[in-house]
Amino acid sequence: MTGKKIDLNSDVGESFGAWTMGADEALMPYITSASIACGWHGGDPQVMRRTVRLARTHGVRVGAHPGYPDLLGFGRRPMQLSPAEARDYLLYQIGALYAFAKAEGMRLQHVKPHGALYHVAANDRLLSESVAGAIVEVDPTLILVGPPGSALLSAGRAAGLRVAAEGFGDRAYNEDGSLVFRSAPGAILTDADAVAAQVLLMVEGKVRAITGRMIPIAVDTVCLHGDTPGAPAIAKRLQERLALAGITTMPLEELLVGQVA
Amino acid sequence: MTGKKIDLNSDVGESFGAWTMGADEALMPYITSASIACGWHGGDPQVMRRTVRLARTHGVRVGAHPGYPDLLGFGRRPMQLSPAEARDYLLYQIGALYAFAKAEGMRLQHVKPHGALYHVAANDRLLSESVAGAIVEVDPTLILVGPPGSALLSAGRAAGLRVAAEGFGDRAYNEDGSLVFRSAPGAILTDADAVAAQVLLMVEGKVRAITGRMIPIAVDTVCLHGDTPGAPAIAKRLQERLALAGITTMPLEELLVGQVA
Amino acid sequence: MTGKKIDLNSDVGESFGAWTMGADEALMPYITSASIACGWHGGDPQVMRRTVRLARTHGVRVGAHPGYPDLLGFGRRPMQLSPAEARDYLLYQIGALYAFAKAEGMRLQHVKPHGALYHVAANDRLLSESVAGAIVEVDPTLILVGPPGSALLSAGRAAGLRVAAEGFGDRAYNEDGSLVFRSAPGAILTDADAVAAQVLLMVEGKVRAITGRMIPIAVDTVCLHGDTPGAPAIAKRLQERLALAGITTMPLEELLVGQVA
Amino acid sequence: MTGKKIDLNSDVGESFGAWTMGADEALMPYITSASIACGWHGGDPQVMRRTVRLARTHGVRVGAHPGYPDLLGFGRRPMQLSPAEARDYLLYQIGALYAFAKAEGMRLQHVKPHGALYHVAANDRLLSESVAGAIVEVDPTLILVGPPGSALLSAGRAAGLRVAAEGFGDRAYNEDGSLVFRSAPGAILTDADAVAAQVLLMVEGKVRAITGRMIPIAVDTVCLHGDTPGAPAIAKRLQERLALAGITTMPLEELLVGQVA
Repeated sequence: MTGKKIDLNSDVGESFGAWTMGADEALMPYITSASIACGWHGGDPQVMRRTVRLARTHGVRVGAHPGYPDLLGFGRRPMQLSPAEARDYLLYQIGALYAFAKAEGMRLQHVKPHGALYHVAANDRLLSESVAGAIVEVDPTLILVGPPGSALLSAGRAAGLRVAAEGFGDRAYNEDGSLVFRSAPGAILTDADAVAAQVLLMVEGKVRAITGRMIPIAVDTVCLHGDTPGAPAIAKRLQERLALAGITTMPLEELLVGQVA
Repeated sequence: MTGKKIDLNSDVGESFGAWTMGADEALMPYITSASIACGWHGGDPQVMRRTVRLARTHGVRVGAHPGYPDLLGFGRRPMQLSPAEARDYLLYQIGALYAFAKAEGMRLQHVKPHGALYHVAANDRLLSESVAGAIVEVDPTLILVGPPGSALLSAGRAAGLRVAAEGFGDRAYNEDGSLVFRSAPGAILTDADAVAAQVLLMVEGKVRAITGRMIPIAVDTVCLHGDTPGAPAIAKRLQERLALAGITTMPLEELLVGQVA
Repeated sequence: MTGKKIDLNSDVGESFGAWTMGADEALMPYITSASIACGWHGGDPQVMRRTVRLARTHGVRVGAHPGYPDLLGFGRRPMQLSPAEARDYLLYQIGALYAFAKAEGMRLQHVKPHGALYHVAANDRLLSESVAGAIVEVDPTLILVGPPGSALLSAGRAAGLRVAAEGFGDRAYNEDGSLVFRSAPGAILTDADAVAAQVLLMVEGKVRAITGRMIPIAVDTVCLHGDTPGAPAIAKRLQERLALAGITTMPLEELLVGQVA
Repeated sequence: MTGKKIDLNSDVGESFGAWTMGADEALMPYITSASIACGWHGGDPQVMRRTVRLARTHGVRVGAHPGYPDLLGFGRRPMQLSPAEARDYLLYQIGALYAFAKAEGMRLQHVKPHGALYHVAANDRLLSESVAGAIVEVDPTLILVGPPGSALLSAGRAAGLRVAAEGFGDRAYNEDGSLVFRSAPGAILTDADAVAAQVLLMVEGKVRAITGRMIPIAVDTVCLHGDTPGAPAIAKRLQERLALAGITTMPLEELLVGQVA
């Protein structure tokens, strides 16, 4: 018995109107935290309710996954926002999801910025302070999720928030701990065993960079992308491997129970 | 001393992005409740924050003013929504405004549907039940505002909500208590004294229909439109006339204090 | 040699941003006319270009498939528009698609309203006049597609446009020639042979209503829905059956060559 | 008789739905070219028609003023677009405006990117090539308007387009020919005589930088902003001063008559 533990999160609720995205129903049994789109880059009110309800059915904790106001670009394109704009855009989206959680008898657990907002904020102190500021304003008990060592996490800590460092089980890493660009060869891991092996390493505090070198990485939660083919099968395999290794999956809120908010 | 009292409300926060609408700052000193647009027919996150803050400064209570998803038509065009769509659209908007109220240290007091949603729901039992249902889900202490004798108010009561009947100081009434269509001659009252006279009658439980006949009407709140020229002057005059008549203006929450939620 | 002929059309280009819809590539080889979404209910600039290009590759004629300003509802919800609004909304969307046709070396062939706009206009003289009026303004050689005997087609004829009556191979008909509601049992034909049989009857000027009674129907084009499972297989089978029956498929423009614009 | 001439352009049609912006009617008598918003940063189909019609009434030439897909930010915030996205977004907007020009019996004269798209493209070769490429695809006789010496103009020339260099009568310049940031003191000229003096200098091929130093600048058209208070009065005064100085105002198409497309 190792006592090791990890949260598994996935970005869900990204369907919009008549359009479907992801494999939310198939993934839910294997994750412990769900980051739910809030209607700006994906998601809509009916999808939000359906997704919160689905999470509740599976005992999965829910968090907000707010993005840029860019439905056409799925929130993946950097936009130049003022700090005040960013803060208010976050607040709006978190509030909207709060209402669905309330309606379905749940509480929000965390906030994880989406897409370009996540990546830009990771290296942008001002933007990260806006994100953290919005969370503090609406509910200071929410956990802020971001990349390990990022401006997001340090802004969250500075604002008095609990924070969670996120790793990616299906993305290759550079030696400096950054993600290999999606478009580069080998950037995406699609083999279930390779993903599981990477996550097992992460639980040990390390990851093998694309160069082959082992680097340290400290993560509280691992993201499983639902939009890759075979995502549910990968998630299932990962759960089995984690169980075999004596690693417990649990939602962030339980995992960070010792962390002072 | 008559003991008579009334709430004065106005639809505010309807600017959007680079576009300005209304005279919120000039009106605020004269109203007791503010219905704030939630970004779907008007308003945006920054406008929402600014408007909540402005209301707080003036001691004005805030409520949500949700509308159809029709920015292009300012929520004034009937759309055919399913009950589930309507409920979730309301929930989303109320939640978004909730976050700004929370951020600015306020609580939401009421919900008043906007434009075509207000008018369609007034006569549509199913739609009204969706509106009331959304409110119950997010916060059953919120007051639902609608026309006197409307399906909105009866659905609100049936759902266990406190409700407030709304009259219009600057709109002419038909003998059946409905509003004269905007486009008809005499539909809009623009003279400050005429508006004040109509509101004074309303406090007494009556109004003179456009035909000249006096009809009974029971209202808890009177709406002052901010987008008509001279709105602040009209509001100022009204406040003076109400004061002279010994009528106290107070927010809905205080006015309905005896009403069982 | 029968000399019989028919146009086969499909609604395509309805993907949006990161979301995919339909099976455009698989369907294109089997149709002669493509109705392309214009960004308001579905479609976006990149999808529009890709779809025009795909049609050109397959020798398929292109037309505009404009809808209500309702991305969230995929243009399937009736909205109350003024005649001037409707006309200008159509004009905007047709113009946008025109540019992509121009860029890809094609001309627009037709206009077919989408979803609720199609169904509402079919029975609404004023709205149909707006649709026809917009087409006349931008290009009076465009063909207006609508249901047989509809207000759309009569408004088109009155405006001097060529018109094409559209039948549905995969939808059941009532005895009065209207479509059985989607939600009713038996409303959707999913068997390839059943669809083919219905289209063969339509080419003969008749269709078997859901009641079993044969009714007359005169159509110039048959719509194949691309969003039903098995749509490409159905289209392929239909083409084979039409060929066996000596029926030629050809685009509307060739089919209506005798029709005075 | 000097033979000097200049085009005066203004950004118009930027109202949206229920929101009004600018003073289009008051400005039209004083300008020779109108850049009309296309619905993405401002403008909507009804505004586009109204504005084209207004321009026609005043004998003013019309052009497209396309922007980023950012209604909420009025197209003023840089967004990271791929070259293919930018080209297709431009094409869409130009096509939409083309339809209104056609409907009102006019032709498009030019294309002038709006806001952040204008400023980003001015220094971005790839983005400028996308802009020029879209114009070539839809109508290679259109004139591309951009800052003097910008990547926009060189990309336009390289693509075989006629180009027009634009100066600002009401904005202060740095010594390198760039505009002083809006937020800096003295950035905006609000005095009618100061604006007129600056434009008179520009016609002579020079402008006095904010430092006091005279710098060379070659412009074909001068932009008058319609959203500044007093814009119509400034425009009127400018017209008078130009007339006194024997300078003729004429639309770009006439001005560039010698320029090989």
